[in-house]
Amino acid sequence: MGGLSIKAGIVGGAGYTGGELLRLLLNHPNVEIAFVHSNSQAGKPVYETHKDLLGDTDLYFTDELHQDVDVLFLCVGHGAAKQFLEAAQLPASIKIIDLSQDFRWNESLKEAVVTGCEREFVYGLPELQRESIKQAQHIANPGCFATAIQLALLPLAQQNLLTEEVQVSGITGSTGAGQGLSPTAHYSWREGNISNYKVLSHQHLHEIRRTLQCMQENEVPNINFVPYRGAFTRGILCTSYTRSHLSQAEAEELYGSFYSTHPFVSISKSTPDLKQVVNTNKCLLHLQKQGNYLVVTSMIDNLVKGASGQAVQNMNLLFGLEEQAGLRLKASAF
Amino acid sequence: MGGLSIKAGIVGGAGYTGGELLRLLLNHPNVEIAFVHSNSQAGKPVYETHKDLLGDTDLYFTDELHQDVDVLFLCVGHGAAKQFLEAAQLPASIKIIDLSQDFRWNESLKEAVVTGCEREFVYGLPELQRESIKQAQHIANPGCFATAIQLALLPLAQQNLLTEEVQVSGITGSTGAGQGLSPTAHYSWREGNISNYKVLSHQHLHEIRRTLQCMQENEVPNINFVPYRGAFTRGILCTSYTRSHLSQAEAEELYGSFYSTHPFVSISKSTPDLKQVVNTNKCLLHLQKQGNYLVVTSMIDNLVKGASGQAVQNMNLLFGLEEQAGLRLKASAF
Amino acid sequence: MGGLSIKAGIVGGAGYTGGELLRLLLNHPNVEIAFVHSNSQAGKPVYETHKDLLGDTDLYFTDELHQDVDVLFLCVGHGAAKQFLEAAQLPASIKIIDLSQDFRWNESLKEAVVTGCEREFVYGLPELQRESIKQAQHIANPGCFATAIQLALLPLAQQNLLTEEVQVSGITGSTGAGQGLSPTAHYSWREGNISNYKVLSHQHLHEIRRTLQCMQENEVPNINFVPYRGAFTRGILCTSYTRSHLSQAEAEELYGSFYSTHPFVSISKSTPDLKQVVNTNKCLLHLQKQGNYLVVTSMIDNLVKGASGQAVQNMNLLFGLEEQAGLRLKASAF
Amino acid sequence: MGGLSIKAGIVGGAGYTGGELLRLLLNHPNVEIAFVHSNSQAGKPVYETHKDLLGDTDLYFTDELHQDVDVLFLCVGHGAAKQFLEAAQLPASIKIIDLSQDFRWNESLKEAVVTGCEREFVYGLPELQRESIKQAQHIANPGCFATAIQLALLPLAQQNLLTEEVQVSGITGSTGAGQGLSPTAHYSWREGNISNYKVLSHQHLHEIRRTLQCMQENEVPNINFVPYRGAFTRGILCTSYTRSHLSQAEAEELYGSFYSTHPFVSISKSTPDLKQVVNTNKCLLHLQKQGNYLVVTSMIDNLVKGASGQAVQNMNLLFGLEEQAGLRLKASAF
Repeated sequence: MGGLSIKAGIVGGAGYTGGELLRLLLNHPNVEIAFVHSNSQAGKPVYETHKDLLGDTDLYFTDELHQDVDVLFLCVGHGAAKQFLEAAQLPASIKIIDLSQDFRWNESLKEAVVTGCEREFVYGLPELQRESIKQAQHIANPGCFATAIQLALLPLAQQNLLTEEVQVSGITGSTGAGQGLSPTAHYSWREGNISNYKVLSHQHLHEIRRTLQCMQENEVPNINFVPYRGAFTRGILCTSYTRSHLSQAEAEELYGSFYSTHPFVSISKSTPDLKQVVNTNKCLLHLQKQGNYLVVTSMIDNLVKGASGQAVQNMNLLFGLEEQAGLRLKASAF
Repeated sequence: MGGLSIKAGIVGGAGYTGGELLRLLLNHPNVEIAFVHSNSQAGKPVYETHKDLLGDTDLYFTDELHQDVDVLFLCVGHGAAKQFLEAAQLPASIKIIDLSQDFRWNESLKEAVVTGCEREFVYGLPELQRESIKQAQHIANPGCFATAIQLALLPLAQQNLLTEEVQVSGITGSTGAGQGLSPTAHYSWREGNISNYKVLSHQHLHEIRRTLQCMQENEVPNINFVPYRGAFTRGILCTSYTRSHLSQAEAEELYGSFYSTHPFVSISKSTPDLKQVVNTNKCLLHLQKQGNYLVVTSMIDNLVKGASGQAVQNMNLLFGLEEQAGLRLKASAF
Repeated sequence: MGGLSIKAGIVGGAGYTGGELLRLLLNHPNVEIAFVHSNSQAGKPVYETHKDLLGDTDLYFTDELHQDVDVLFLCVGHGAAKQFLEAAQLPASIKIIDLSQDFRWNESLKEAVVTGCEREFVYGLPELQRESIKQAQHIANPGCFATAIQLALLPLAQQNLLTEEVQVSGITGSTGAGQGLSPTAHYSWREGNISNYKVLSHQHLHEIRRTLQCMQENEVPNINFVPYRGAFTRGILCTSYTRSHLSQAEAEELYGSFYSTHPFVSISKSTPDLKQVVNTNKCLLHLQKQGNYLVVTSMIDNLVKGASGQAVQNMNLLFGLEEQAGLRLKASAF
Repeated sequence: MGGLSIKAGIVGGAGYTGGELLRLLLNHPNVEIAFVHSNSQAGKPVYETHKDLLGDTDLYFTDELHQDVDVLFLCVGHGAAKQFLEAAQLPASIKIIDLSQDFRWNESLKEAVVTGCEREFVYGLPELQRESIKQAQHIANPGCFATAIQLALLPLAQQNLLTEEVQVSGITGSTGAGQGLSPTAHYSWREGNISNYKVLSHQHLHEIRRTLQCMQENEVPNINFVPYRGAFTRGILCTSYTRSHLSQAEAEELYGSFYSTHPFVSISKSTPDLKQVVNTNKCLLHLQKQGNYLVVTSMIDNLVKGASGQAVQNMNLLFGLEEQAGLRLKASAF
């Protein structure tokens, strides 16, 4: 495994998730970056866009697609991934890891697999279906809020314990909205501010419900989700609660057991805070029984475990590498 | 009314709410500050503690109580207000406005009045009971989260429309925790961070439930509240939702009518954000019907409408002044 | 004076300085806002752009100019003020207060007065030339960095004590760059970040040098200025130092005397911080003698004393009102 | 080299630099952490103090010193390192890397070596004296501001080009002040704030001056330094300027050549910003000729290149490892 070198291509390399993927792959022991595709930045050095990479890479963006790669990461916008694949005529042998939502769910399915563009995309949440991912050819990488909420609820769904309405609130950092300039991305507006958006109507709810229903036999109840825009750049913290007969000890036993073989999920006994996971591929969970309710706090870095880090984790699984390869990241902590 | 001058004393003037009260009263057209009491800072200029007041006042903190005042604001900690009144032997003619929680609620009452220290304290939420406040002698000033949540739910309670569980999440700025140094007040920890605390067990729930039950005939349902510590200094934003038969138009009609005579509450048609109210005495509400749920977003400045500004509003009512006197504040907006 | 009502018009009312001016004038006891002009927002309520004004005003933006005003504030961009005046054909009786840099300086002048568009514009720094402003018809309102640096150096210039090079560094909040969307205004970039710009080449140096030369007989020495973009929204803090024979006591005496009649400038004995002046029209100064150097720290709110507040201060002087009318603002402090 | 395993001990492991060192050493391919000493936290898991390490390590703090180590990192406060060494009676064979200022400079020396506690400490700035470090037994790790300023000026000193006064301003994040609770560390104070401190009198000036004088034959001129506390947690950005005869091209040639063999220093052609280096061991430099002045902007992460990362870099050199081992860190970038 030490000698294995995977040739990787990146499409949409000038955006936030593309940049984060570059930061990870440049230090990955088993990856060689074959090319970084960008229509807008073609011909320019990668470090002119991702300025922290100055001194780390001499790569240039290109607008040509090289087919001599083992894996292709699609870091383009929602809708654009499907368009790209339809136009690109790639050989089926190239594994695709798509970070958009284009192949994440499909209303009619009971399995976390979606067919599209003549390919079958396995939903890339390793804590849900690591073995299916290992066997897969193509991956639909999960959404950021969807990752944080699913990891909070998966153990309950596996035991058919989601029986009453679930309430979720969550706060996301600004990088979740990408690098586009918009009024809610303006520093003078967002600094020291907070606002909610898409209350009870966030698009990730489809993805979450589908996943939970794959695990749970009885029907998954209503999930209400209030998302907030927070005054920080990185990370997502969610609080989920539902009525439950589990005691504190039973809940800890259930979650501890479920995640015991998953290296990126940890259960915190003490109240955690978001910066414990920022700039890492970790998900941190905290469990509290309050009256009849089980409260699960979950947190991830939206650009790492919520996007590019999880994409690398999926790549590791696709190619039989150690799951943590290239993902032992120093937390920023402050 | 222009000539009326109220002599005001402040006890606990060195803390955050005391400072905010000073900022307001120094510019109030009908108030003369008789003294500012502080045990810890006695003998020092007020501007050494509240440094923004340099150039605005030559007042010194004192550890003596002058009884020649019309109104006394208690800006001391929870528990300390009761202790102070028990020890101070103040004439009953001095009106008291207590910013602590010591006289806010009493399990057995169905009215928003609490008796203690040989006095009767009217709960000082003007949008709940302005007329009672006008007739009152002493005021228990509401809590900050309690203000934001009550203003979101009062019109429903008045119409007996709180029939199913209410879910609330809210984010507060750091000044809500006062000026004490603590790990969660450390800049290096809190900057760019988010965490929840007292999930489903916040102490303001008693106060909220009592108020709503005063208004609503049928029993007020369970209220679940998830509070968050946000990475900002001022303000509280809450999202409350419950199942409701009201349509969007009916909800807007109900809330618009309820608050039409209340100068500090406005209903925003568009999605609001916290900084619209920061550094003002306003409460902003936003209504959305989503499926079967009515979602109410509410926001205030925790130190103004959530504390010292509301105290001044109550003082205005107690003394027959215009409700907005001294409270037409320039928003900071950014 | 209580009865005096000034009819004011605002041109360019949809930007940051226009909004800040509205916040001030709506609460000014002697002003009636006649109209708010905006090409981009004409026909829309003012509170849709300046959202904190919801509940405070029913004004609409207009694209028509009413000539029945006493004073017109120009809150348009640099260059656009001159263009506007050339096109608008306003009667000379309307007083103009221009917040752009179009009439602030003129290379050839030794006086802080600029002629342009058939008008004479007096440079509106009251601490420099309050009497000239009182007699003036039109005002060129100073720049924000220029205000902070000039107030740090004026007393030295008056005594011909600027004899050796002056070093200045200063940090500005994001609102100084206006509401335009740009990469350095993106929250994900600016949060927790710092960068310098226009090092030793900032355009305000012309304005500063001209003012100081008006006061000082001998030639004003070289002024080096390093501006920084800070991770905050409001305010400017500058540190200026130069070799000086003044002792600490002599410096304090000089500055105290110079500013004794100027209500918005205070000298702090202790080390100050920016938030002492945020959301006020104050300038705070701090003096330190270090070896052979006199160090002057100065700070203002860039949108208030650095723009719209100073414009109101100038209006007060133009119309014989009390200098502080409408400018006794509650600091945000946090 | 792949097989080499260095046994490392950490003294003062509960503070910020101790935590940062742990984050680095846990992922270092050639290090085994023998023990983490802390008087205050002895007996508790390391992850209770450094909460981001939950899931990464099962280490406990200890109050015992194990002597079976190859290297000992001292992460205790200024003064405490000397006290520790005097009391500890360590064998001379254990290499010491001291992060305090206790052995950084000595007024009388012309060499960057200090003798104390019966040991000789080589000043650990690899870009100054990499070969001496490789031969050293003990290291005095440089200060954070000192690192940023020295790296900005070293190439000039080497060429005897520091002939006129140098002006420096710099802004530091809050972690530079450690984890102690203090008024200037309070979130409600520091958020959105800026202030200067120790103007023209910062203690790192001794260290800087000594280093530059080691390199330059003629006397190093006066260096004026204005430090600021910034509203961010990590990083230092400094702007230094001095009169220089070098052209832009000559300066770039000089700096490019000087740093060509130093893997952590890069020269940016475009204006850089602090977040390009946050959470990395890099120093980024930018050169601008403005009139007669050469302006050098330099930036580092104060906890990494300014403290624990540089300590690891020094350890790598002491033990003949690759200089970048364990220091290829993913930037946080946002």
